[in-house]
Amino acid sequence: MKKTLHWALSGALLASVAGMASAAEPIQPIAAAKPGNPAMVELGKKLFFDPRLSKSGFISCNSCHNLSMGGSDNLKTSIGDHWQQGPINSPTVLNSRLNLAQFWDGRAKDLKEQAGGPIANPKEMAFSHALAVDVLRSIPQYVNEFKKVYGEPAIDIGKVTTAIAAFEDTLVTPDSRFDQWLKGNKKALSAQELRGYQTFKNSGCVACHNGPNVGGNSFQKMGQVEPYKTSNPAEGRVAVTGKDADRFTFKVPTLRNVELTYPYFHDGEAATLAQAVDVMGRLQLGKKFTEQEIGDVVSFLKTLTGKQPDFKLPILPPSTDSTPRPRPFD
Amino acid sequence: MKKTLHWALSGALLASVAGMASAAEPIQPIAAAKPGNPAMVELGKKLFFDPRLSKSGFISCNSCHNLSMGGSDNLKTSIGDHWQQGPINSPTVLNSRLNLAQFWDGRAKDLKEQAGGPIANPKEMAFSHALAVDVLRSIPQYVNEFKKVYGEPAIDIGKVTTAIAAFEDTLVTPDSRFDQWLKGNKKALSAQELRGYQTFKNSGCVACHNGPNVGGNSFQKMGQVEPYKTSNPAEGRVAVTGKDADRFTFKVPTLRNVELTYPYFHDGEAATLAQAVDVMGRLQLGKKFTEQEIGDVVSFLKTLTGKQPDFKLPILPPSTDSTPRPRPFD
Repeated sequence: MKKTLHWALSGALLASVAGMASAAEPIQPIAAAKPGNPAMVELGKKLFFDPRLSKSGFISCNSCHNLSMGGSDNLKTSIGDHWQQGPINSPTVLNSRLNLAQFWDGRAKDLKEQAGGPIANPKEMAFSHALAVDVLRSIPQYVNEFKKVYGEPAIDIGKVTTAIAAFEDTLVTPDSRFDQWLKGNKKALSAQELRGYQTFKNSGCVACHNGPNVGGNSFQKMGQVEPYKTSNPAEGRVAVTGKDADRFTFKVPTLRNVELTYPYFHDGEAATLAQAVDVMGRLQLGKKFTEQEIGDVVSFLKTLTGKQPDFKLPILPPSTDSTPRPRPFD
Repeated sequence: MKKTLHWALSGALLASVAGMASAAEPIQPIAAAKPGNPAMVELGKKLFFDPRLSKSGFISCNSCHNLSMGGSDNLKTSIGDHWQQGPINSPTVLNSRLNLAQFWDGRAKDLKEQAGGPIANPKEMAFSHALAVDVLRSIPQYVNEFKKVYGEPAIDIGKVTTAIAAFEDTLVTPDSRFDQWLKGNKKALSAQELRGYQTFKNSGCVACHNGPNVGGNSFQKMGQVEPYKTSNPAEGRVAVTGKDADRFTFKVPTLRNVELTYPYFHDGEAATLAQAVDVMGRLQLGKKFTEQEIGDVVSFLKTLTGKQPDFKLPILPPSTDSTPRPRPFD
């Protein structure tokens, strides 16, 4: 009896120490999604994939936040209605629920607010909220789904963006090899990957890239030590706050799945992770990483790729005779 | 014993009669897909969804043959690289394996030959076969998959289009309500739907829209009785054969899933099924359908919607540092 108690206590102590060790790391594992309202998530998934929320009938949320490609479009800046060149690199939608705000300048407080933006942006989906709602109201299968989810068949843009955000809330990517390591599987990382993580911590990268999303939880100036040179006119958070101190301040991007979300930075000018690590070292930390250090950090960063979205391609309800038709070439 | 035999024979006789009745119908049920090479189908699925087969990195096969929307883009004519307006309505990829040839003018003999077309068409994906292959060769996960499927890691355009075609071969839509009726479930159709089918048969629609794909098995002149007026410059099969008799001759489109593949005709000018039925009656059959007949035929046509593609959204392997980058704005 005494021995059993002794072992039980030891086990508890060990678990506690392991827990402390993990808690002391600047990065925490990502939790799996727990969808509260599966019917709303299913509706939001359809809306996320539905190009009829754009004027052209060609661009959906998934066009620029492609869930087959890390929730991004892998372009420097996105393509909008009439092939307009977008002003900024499309951030991944994966794990975006963990960000302190949405868009590079944080102008949307949450995913619901974000979801309304591109639909009505003349350079992106080029539609209006009223027209998008008109389309959905004309499709009986959508009306039925909204009724099932919200208890009434009336559709408004708030219900649309709430459902899209509920779907996006589920787009988390747990179980990366790094998270397995954080949770105690010490074989999950190679020696080089661990060395990269040490360099990442010791060099100060974790000052901004920390927390479960390895970023996304603060605004920081792009070019802390040395100015960042770019032809991209985006000025960052100053556009939201009006404060001169926020000029060239952007939301720190998540590094989760960063292997999939190339190219990098708000202007998409860093084509490879090696370039991005080199520039970050010099401009943010005043540190010139050696080639070996860059290789190590890149190998660590690739361990942050988690479980990708795992669902069936949604089948969209057809338009009806009364559905307003897309106008791609007007 | 004698009685049992009697019943068994009666059953066989009945089944035989039911089979004969079904065989006598001008439309036959669609068979479910039997993929011969699942690994090749999976590879082809990824390629079908991969926008890196286009110059812009933005357009995939699925952009214009959207499997969430009946295998079409639901636009009059498609959007290509730099938002170029395509010359013709994008035909559905669903059940396209059953067509006698591919494209409206039948210029590709099969799906493999078709798949290479849009990749290299400057108005569509605007890439070249060589560049598309270069992209794939730079991605180790693709190289491994090609090796698994073809027994060797070398990638060429023939292997690419063979895999895409193998995936497209699986995109059949069995189990429509009409097929259930053909197979003997007499409750599968309503009285109006059956009336519509009778009108469809008695009026001569089945002269061209017959077989398992309810079309797709012949070339016919658009405007048999009265000329079809359109501003679309496509001249149809004459472009392939050079024969003047083939001017304005097009492949008869399938009517499978026609509820989902609006708008209709090679120029996409018929927005609704009612319009399409009315025009077909007048121009092809010299017959002015009554409003009731049109309603009946439309209700029958909607029973041709079958089981839609049912698979998980493919996750694409990431590019590497050596992958040629997309050039959307060049």
